[in-house]
Amino acid sequence: MKRMELLRRLARDNGKKMILLVMDGIGGLPGPDGKTELEAADTPNLDGLAAKSELGLIDMVDAGITPGSGPGHLSLFGYDPLEFSIGRGILEAMGVGALVGPGDVCARGNFCTRSEDDIILDRRAGRIATEKSALVVEKLAAAIREIDGVKVTFYPGKEHRFVVVFSGAGLTEQVADADPQQEGAPMRWADSLGPDGERMAAVANAFIRKVSEVLKGDAPANGCLLRGFSSAPDLPLMGDLYRMRPVAVATYPMYRGLAKLVGMDVVDAGETLDQLFDTVGRLWNDYDYFYVHVKYTDSRGEDGDFDGKRKVVETVDALLPKLLALSPGVLVVTGDHSTPSVMSAHSWHPVPFLLSSPFVRSGDSAAFSERECRIGSGGRMEARKLLGLMLAHAGRLEKYGA
Amino acid sequence: MKRMELLRRLARDNGKKMILLVMDGIGGLPGPDGKTELEAADTPNLDGLAAKSELGLIDMVDAGITPGSGPGHLSLFGYDPLEFSIGRGILEAMGVGALVGPGDVCARGNFCTRSEDDIILDRRAGRIATEKSALVVEKLAAAIREIDGVKVTFYPGKEHRFVVVFSGAGLTEQVADADPQQEGAPMRWADSLGPDGERMAAVANAFIRKVSEVLKGDAPANGCLLRGFSSAPDLPLMGDLYRMRPVAVATYPMYRGLAKLVGMDVVDAGETLDQLFDTVGRLWNDYDYFYVHVKYTDSRGEDGDFDGKRKVVETVDALLPKLLALSPGVLVVTGDHSTPSVMSAHSWHPVPFLLSSPFVRSGDSAAFSERECRIGSGGRMEARKLLGLMLAHAGRLEKYGA
Repeated sequence: MKRMELLRRLARDNGKKMILLVMDGIGGLPGPDGKTELEAADTPNLDGLAAKSELGLIDMVDAGITPGSGPGHLSLFGYDPLEFSIGRGILEAMGVGALVGPGDVCARGNFCTRSEDDIILDRRAGRIATEKSALVVEKLAAAIREIDGVKVTFYPGKEHRFVVVFSGAGLTEQVADADPQQEGAPMRWADSLGPDGERMAAVANAFIRKVSEVLKGDAPANGCLLRGFSSAPDLPLMGDLYRMRPVAVATYPMYRGLAKLVGMDVVDAGETLDQLFDTVGRLWNDYDYFYVHVKYTDSRGEDGDFDGKRKVVETVDALLPKLLALSPGVLVVTGDHSTPSVMSAHSWHPVPFLLSSPFVRSGDSAAFSERECRIGSGGRMEARKLLGLMLAHAGRLEKYGA
Repeated sequence: MKRMELLRRLARDNGKKMILLVMDGIGGLPGPDGKTELEAADTPNLDGLAAKSELGLIDMVDAGITPGSGPGHLSLFGYDPLEFSIGRGILEAMGVGALVGPGDVCARGNFCTRSEDDIILDRRAGRIATEKSALVVEKLAAAIREIDGVKVTFYPGKEHRFVVVFSGAGLTEQVADADPQQEGAPMRWADSLGPDGERMAAVANAFIRKVSEVLKGDAPANGCLLRGFSSAPDLPLMGDLYRMRPVAVATYPMYRGLAKLVGMDVVDAGETLDQLFDTVGRLWNDYDYFYVHVKYTDSRGEDGDFDGKRKVVETVDALLPKLLALSPGVLVVTGDHSTPSVMSAHSWHPVPFLLSSPFVRSGDSAAFSERECRIGSGGRMEARKLLGLMLAHAGRLEKYGA
């Protein structure tokens, strides 16, 4: 039996709260002084917690495999990252902040310049400025809220680009691009790639006509093209699988989008780390599983900024008491992959984790670091198993077999 | 997705060099003084390297399973040894030094004594001496280079035995033995075991007739029988899979044969350990992946010669600087299985490994031994994952997912 199905059968809702604190790219390598970023950081709160927690290392995908953010997070959320994957179209849409839920279809849009009789004169509407494009999106968003019963949501992008998400029944990604690919050619309308795509193609074409109507006289941006129709991957949803109410407390678009894909509610988490951590307390009674995402550890690692990454860790450490004050049933601190500053990139190295609950076999660890996690009582395991371990420590899994 | 397919998709050629140094049967058990062979050996170079490397243990097949050389090496080369296997016929052929590449078919030959009208009088040609047999093989090799467009290669064996490898298109192992199995009986010609075997059967019979012609008047060895037609297993080749140029630097026939099966070039590596290690430097610019095989650790282990095995380890340690001087991107030192001297046999015990690269999380290990590997930062893993880890440390794998 697959682990996911096993967990689904055993899961029960006892109301216990779980927090998954993800410091993006937290795993590191020794820097100038022979210490990793975690070792170099002054982290009294994490270290104090480590002494009474289970520490270990997780492999996000498999030995030697460097994960992108998608596979890394899918693992943390309990999905086998080699079984489930997220397509490029969806990832690009999420990059501009689009939330694409189950059944939704998104497409990348270009504003274009068209003639009265639908000849495409400029596929990029003169590459209009990002600020101007945002105003066009605003105008459209006010004018077009649905097409034939399908909800339409706009997200502005850079220059002439935007993303549109269609939400409604009967939509699929079986639709070819609505784009003639060359200028001076007649519009090429969205075409279904099979019977399942007919409704989406019809809605897309009606949408494009409506855009032309709203933008009539607004040349150069007086029409649009749509490409890369993509539906959300068919992921079983965390809430249904494990009988809990999961929420994403994250500020960066990509991670909010990933959380949406697995069925989490996505809330406004403010802009600062302070606000991010306060958001958990604010929502404490509304959810059971809190995915809290800190981006900057990865950002500084990617910059090759050892000291910067160390400082972000120290900031998170200083904010940790806000989470501890909530007395969660389970608190896990980990990352979605390693981003050693000395590599300025994601890496394959296993990721440290700390699991705090009243039921841990604490080890001999006096600090939260790669080295201490290597000898910790949590051992080394596949990251996708972490979620089940959290459920167990929260008392949310029944016994298997009599 | 299978790991092999995943690695294939992610592999890129960045020119970085990798060395896999296999000390055959390196894993041991405590001897008279409570130390293993590795612990007893004086190995300043390995120990110095260990202090700044990732150490760990690998399971070649599975817990408790004692591997033969075939499965042990397949694992090291990245193949799942429970999915891929090498048949007896091929292994025996490799034992006399035959190189059997993809598409080739080999067979074991006996010299025999036959009458003019193809009655088999003696199936072993009076068990002629090995030296005489070698001369017969030499005569045949000079006279028979191909049969109907199929290249023929001879390898002498013990007494009346030899091996022949047929290389050409359309050959399969679907052929029954060309051997009457009793003396005084008429020759039994090779018979195809299905339509796919017809060409090989025809070539085999033409070959046997040609042998009789060349050896006419040379009784007792005036003909031959062929048994055990075997084609190389259908292994995906390392070079294709991982975009690299692999080479085997090995002196013993079996290991040269194994390397050939997975698509490595097989070169002359001299006779001594000194020459073996020098060969790597000589070929440094021509290949990316160097499989270097030291046989004697296993030989002494099989002899139950604790001290002899210890001494081989010390000799290898003294030669190690020759490899280090090449500054490989990745150097792994390990074995294909354990051969504890106290058991005088292969064993199931996990095998120590050391991985050196600029991107290791070094552990607290001060020596290369079973005990230090057990607490090393590389942890314990399936041996078949080691190749992917080498590729990762060499920067030869792209990120998985965005």
